[in-house]
Amino acid sequence: LRRKKVDLKKLSEDLRSGNSTALSRAITLIESQNNKHQAQVKQLIEACLPHAGDAIRIGITGVPGVGKSTFIESLGLHLINKGHKVAVLAVDPSSSVSNGSILGDKTRMEKLVQSSNAFIRPTASGTSLGGVARKTRESIILCEAAGYDIILIETVGVGQSETAVHSMTDFFLLLKLAGAGDELQGIKRGIIEMADAIVINKADGQNLDAAKRAKVEFNRALHMYPPKDNHWTPKVLLTSALKKKGIDKTWQLISKFIAHVKANHHFELNRLAQNKYWLHQSIEDQLKREFYANPTIKKALESELKKIEAKQTTAFEAANDLLKYYKTKLD
Amino acid sequence: LRRKKVDLKKLSEDLRSGNSTALSRAITLIESQNNKHQAQVKQLIEACLPHAGDAIRIGITGVPGVGKSTFIESLGLHLINKGHKVAVLAVDPSSSVSNGSILGDKTRMEKLVQSSNAFIRPTASGTSLGGVARKTRESIILCEAAGYDIILIETVGVGQSETAVHSMTDFFLLLKLAGAGDELQGIKRGIIEMADAIVINKADGQNLDAAKRAKVEFNRALHMYPPKDNHWTPKVLLTSALKKKGIDKTWQLISKFIAHVKANHHFELNRLAQNKYWLHQSIEDQLKREFYANPTIKKALESELKKIEAKQTTAFEAANDLLKYYKTKLD
Repeated sequence: LRRKKVDLKKLSEDLRSGNSTALSRAITLIESQNNKHQAQVKQLIEACLPHAGDAIRIGITGVPGVGKSTFIESLGLHLINKGHKVAVLAVDPSSSVSNGSILGDKTRMEKLVQSSNAFIRPTASGTSLGGVARKTRESIILCEAAGYDIILIETVGVGQSETAVHSMTDFFLLLKLAGAGDELQGIKRGIIEMADAIVINKADGQNLDAAKRAKVEFNRALHMYPPKDNHWTPKVLLTSALKKKGIDKTWQLISKFIAHVKANHHFELNRLAQNKYWLHQSIEDQLKREFYANPTIKKALESELKKIEAKQTTAFEAANDLLKYYKTKLD
Repeated sequence: LRRKKVDLKKLSEDLRSGNSTALSRAITLIESQNNKHQAQVKQLIEACLPHAGDAIRIGITGVPGVGKSTFIESLGLHLINKGHKVAVLAVDPSSSVSNGSILGDKTRMEKLVQSSNAFIRPTASGTSLGGVARKTRESIILCEAAGYDIILIETVGVGQSETAVHSMTDFFLLLKLAGAGDELQGIKRGIIEMADAIVINKADGQNLDAAKRAKVEFNRALHMYPPKDNHWTPKVLLTSALKKKGIDKTWQLISKFIAHVKANHHFELNRLAQNKYWLHQSIEDQLKREFYANPTIKKALESELKKIEAKQTTAFEAANDLLKYYKTKLD
């Protein structure tokens, strides 16, 4: 036990000094299912928390093939050249199933991975979005305590993962491709509303004209939505991450956004709202998980469902009965 | 107590015999906050349940001004002429605030209200959608037990009320108007996906051309979505409820849909899924409500939020602590 404590203290110190190996090890602890490790994580997070929160957190989403890795590499290198330290994380609740972790293959960002000012961490594994989100939020804290001042969080947008990433970032960027046909087709509901910027990538060569047309269409789509609370009007940009075109403009736009929301205090308000969101989300997840995981409840739920089907009770009455039963079992 | 019992028995019998005054009184009991009344409702529902479930439940949504009342009156009269008994209910969680119950003004359906084969009931009141949904679902059971074989459920679509109505009906109809500009603009997310039919109303006179263009656009929008589990392809229709045009076609379409889903068993599968949905929904609503209503938790929640803001804890850790605390308080 004593040795562990010393290790933890050292790990925390190394991490705080910017040692990326220590940061990696700490994130591995976060991902561990082991109870002892989870207790250590708790201490580690507590030690890091006062030193976290100062980075700019940027969410990046887009379907596979849109060029996310190339875009993140270009943006990351651009930021490092400007003197920043950049951490790249990912939220992909499907990775444990498909084994296709979006950042697993670091060779996709081979230049960025070589920089001592970049930290790239493959997807936190896990099947539940709640679990993955928690691990990612904790990883952000550790990265910030380790001195990374820009955190890029990538998601392929499976299920509700975009909502999760949107709820843990300051700026949310939707990466798109100009294709044939209706540009808005195939965009998941709600994504446009979440975006602070839509970046149309691969806007080069023969794609350039289509990209310009897509820009017009997206601008039109963006204007359908009511103004945001933070008074920011989302913008559409063209980039070619491969040819490093438009990356500087993207960063200028993000910087402008950050200055804007810091000036009107929506930066902090958003962070507070996010904390509240995650607090409620965690509470409700846990309430539900504990209820449904209860073996007696599992059986009772099955039998109530059968009673509903047999028209002996209603869903509402069955819920009442199950909750009464749950409470007596807890006593 | 004895007298009450007798009353309840008589009420139940009268209701079952199709007495609309008894049905009205029973729904008034449903809406009562009184605990004794709620116990009576429970008995009443249990008595009615075996006789419910055989009606066709149709959800109708559309923004104010689209002509919902006229449409429902025309459809209702058409159905009564064909020998049906029609009940009209409404889900409008905002009505208690605005006092603008969508069906409150029965004079808007003055011909339908005069028919002995129509039962029109203003919005169940209440501020929580869960509460309003429960009352509406219970009212459906009573209406069906009273012999109404077609239930029309109207919603103006405030908040999540369309999802609620969609989850308690067999067929979901979106009423639209052909207007100037982009027809898809202003449509709430997800509505198109829920619709089994889109009916463009007021397709008459000078509006006819615009309505025809809107039909093309909606058909295009409908084709963007993947096929539904029930293998039904949503259709777009033109009506003029005022001039009673297209109402027969609307009913033919609904009949075709019902025959289709009864043949491939998705009618029952959908009802089962809806029961499961409401069971889980009721459980989760109640778990949350009880947690947040607990006075000790209320205080603890405030103090945990302050700790999060002061970077002394994370949202996840705070949630853990609150739940541990909640459980010890329950013991």
